Amino acid sequence: MKVSEVLHMNGGIGDSSYASNSLIQREVIFMTKAIAEEAVSDVYCSKFPKTLCIADLGCSSGPNTLLVVTQTVKTVDKIRKKLCRQSSPEFQIYLNDLPGNDFNSIFRSLPRVQEELKEEIGSEFGPCFFNGVPGSFYSRLCPTSTLHFVHSSYSLMWLSQVPKGVEMNKENIYLASTSPPSVINAYYEQFQKDFSMFLKCRSEELVSGGRMVLTILGRKSEDPTSKECCYIWDLLAMALKQMVSEGLIEEEKLNSFGIPQYTPSPLELKAEVEKERSFSINRLEASEINWAACGNKLYSSDDSFKDDGYNVAKCMRSVAEPLLVRHFGESIMDKLFHKYGEILSDCMSKEETKFVNVTISMTKRE
Amino acid sequence: MKVSEVLHMNGGIGDSSYASNSLIQREVIFMTKAIAEEAVSDVYCSKFPKTLCIADLGCSSGPNTLLVVTQTVKTVDKIRKKLCRQSSPEFQIYLNDLPGNDFNSIFRSLPRVQEELKEEIGSEFGPCFFNGVPGSFYSRLCPTSTLHFVHSSYSLMWLSQVPKGVEMNKENIYLASTSPPSVINAYYEQFQKDFSMFLKCRSEELVSGGRMVLTILGRKSEDPTSKECCYIWDLLAMALKQMVSEGLIEEEKLNSFGIPQYTPSPLELKAEVEKERSFSINRLEASEINWAACGNKLYSSDDSFKDDGYNVAKCMRSVAEPLLVRHFGESIMDKLFHKYGEILSDCMSKEETKFVNVTISMTKRE
Repeated sequence: MKVSEVLHMNGGIGDSSYASNSLIQREVIFMTKAIAEEAVSDVYCSKFPKTLCIADLGCSSGPNTLLVVTQTVKTVDKIRKKLCRQSSPEFQIYLNDLPGNDFNSIFRSLPRVQEELKEEIGSEFGPCFFNGVPGSFYSRLCPTSTLHFVHSSYSLMWLSQVPKGVEMNKENIYLASTSPPSVINAYYEQFQKDFSMFLKCRSEELVSGGRMVLTILGRKSEDPTSKECCYIWDLLAMALKQMVSEGLIEEEKLNSFGIPQYTPSPLELKAEVEKERSFSINRLEASEINWAACGNKLYSSDDSFKDDGYNVAKCMRSVAEPLLVRHFGESIMDKLFHKYGEILSDCMSKEETKFVNVTISMTKRE
Repeated sequence: MKVSEVLHMNGGIGDSSYASNSLIQREVIFMTKAIAEEAVSDVYCSKFPKTLCIADLGCSSGPNTLLVVTQTVKTVDKIRKKLCRQSSPEFQIYLNDLPGNDFNSIFRSLPRVQEELKEEIGSEFGPCFFNGVPGSFYSRLCPTSTLHFVHSSYSLMWLSQVPKGVEMNKENIYLASTSPPSVINAYYEQFQKDFSMFLKCRSEELVSGGRMVLTILGRKSEDPTSKECCYIWDLLAMALKQMVSEGLIEEEKLNSFGIPQYTPSPLELKAEVEKERSFSINRLEASEINWAACGNKLYSSDDSFKDDGYNVAKCMRSVAEPLLVRHFGESIMDKLFHKYGEILSDCMSKEETKFVNVTISMTKRE
């Protein structure tokens, strides 16, 4: 199994640190809600399909898993009522993640979710069929020309594998200002390879005129080593380096570790979409969200910077721990994330720190 | 959650007793293989669909879960080659069971199964998309007019609920020669209601000319209290009664327990299909399988009758334990199934004991 698979698979499984990761994801889903609504309205009104097929790729398992698809169903129903169309489409919903994702917990929550949908929308609401689709979104997942709307949030920054030559990156665990050009190229090439494969697979699966909305952790700058995308990993590398100096981690072990992620700029996304040629771009936007959104703002106090730091550490732990455990072993995790929390608190008390999201909305060409 | 859901959900989860249950199911799948092959060949050759949609209903999770669908894919590929058709259809495969089924373990075995399929069939073999579909097959599971082939083995004898008035059945836990007519009617009516709902849902989901092959634990006789279908539960009731007499179970507790199962005759199935009118019947067959098939014949010895009894007890335990635990509690299970094994060994040493399977193959009318 690839390293990224472990990470991707485990990103979001309901452990103690899950809540903080889900908060930021929830925020992002709400921030991009209007774009998703516009896209699904558009495809519904241009096709009025008997069955509307929706896929959420990298759905994970947790409180946000069904958020987008239920929003989508409600959006379609609102438009249907506005247009006084009597019969609702049937909804075929594909929930995708890697085979290691906890689909059981999603499936066990479905009867309740379906009941709630029925109550909110009313009885004339078309049947809604939920399917779990295990597999990598860097391969085909659904039959040809069947999907009307594809959605993915906070998943596509994960590469299919750690780029080659990562040991040249020394003590960095992601791209950094000190990364050699060969490493920067290797990350970019892996992103290009993966993202173009993603586009190719989706172009085969979407119907003509079908819509796709992707939100990816990214950056505004054209510099792939810019602080806005690299700082969060830089600080984790700092915690790891402290542990090297304390003799808790071997230097070589650190030097051979890399995060299989690439945080693209809007222009980089645009370039790949144009190269692949199957899609026209409707919207391409960057937005920002404070690191502090990882924490529950309701409970902020005088001590909130400190809390925020630990909340971000928790959030990153839920995302990166499986990867780190595989490489460094279980035993150092508590200490590592405690250090990371301290470093994050310190830096968040001194400067404003933000994640950048890039959202792209596309139409499959005729 | 309904009692039958618990049972159905847990029938086949990989506990220690699973192996014996899976042996008999495997045997039945091989016994009915030719009928399934005939049906899928027929629908493939009459439609040559771009995407062939196959559903396995009540797929459980264990070594047999993917057996039927992989057999089906291989059958189609064999015919394709025979007919010298260049391009393989895409396969869309729906694996259905209740939301409590262990879909995670199915999904985690998929990469290996897909690899094996690719190796056996070759690279020209069309992509095969596996979907988990959680839900009761007594409700709609898939969009209208999408399925080409529906298969279900050893699931449809489970009713959606225990029929009403079961307390009139006294110490019987299933139908028996001493069951009052009101109880016999209640079981039959529940079967009619459930099975006609099943047919209605599937008729909506299948394309015209689509095929369906069902194998159901049943009986040859028209008497629903005949020994061929009731004896196995009668002997379990005997073990329970022994425990009542030993003061380990309250009599009232036993009197309020019922197995939510109905083992129909071929004629009863035929009557429902004809009443519902969406399907024409191609084949309707009864077959027999020894209770002893629960055990691994390779290991039979002089002591085989005794082993067989305990193997059947194990097999029935994997099927019925969740139901029994819910009603009687966990603590008496070991003792109960030990007693049941003794009773089974004794009876299997004296007489030939067989399960009856009824297999029905149907075509959705134009």
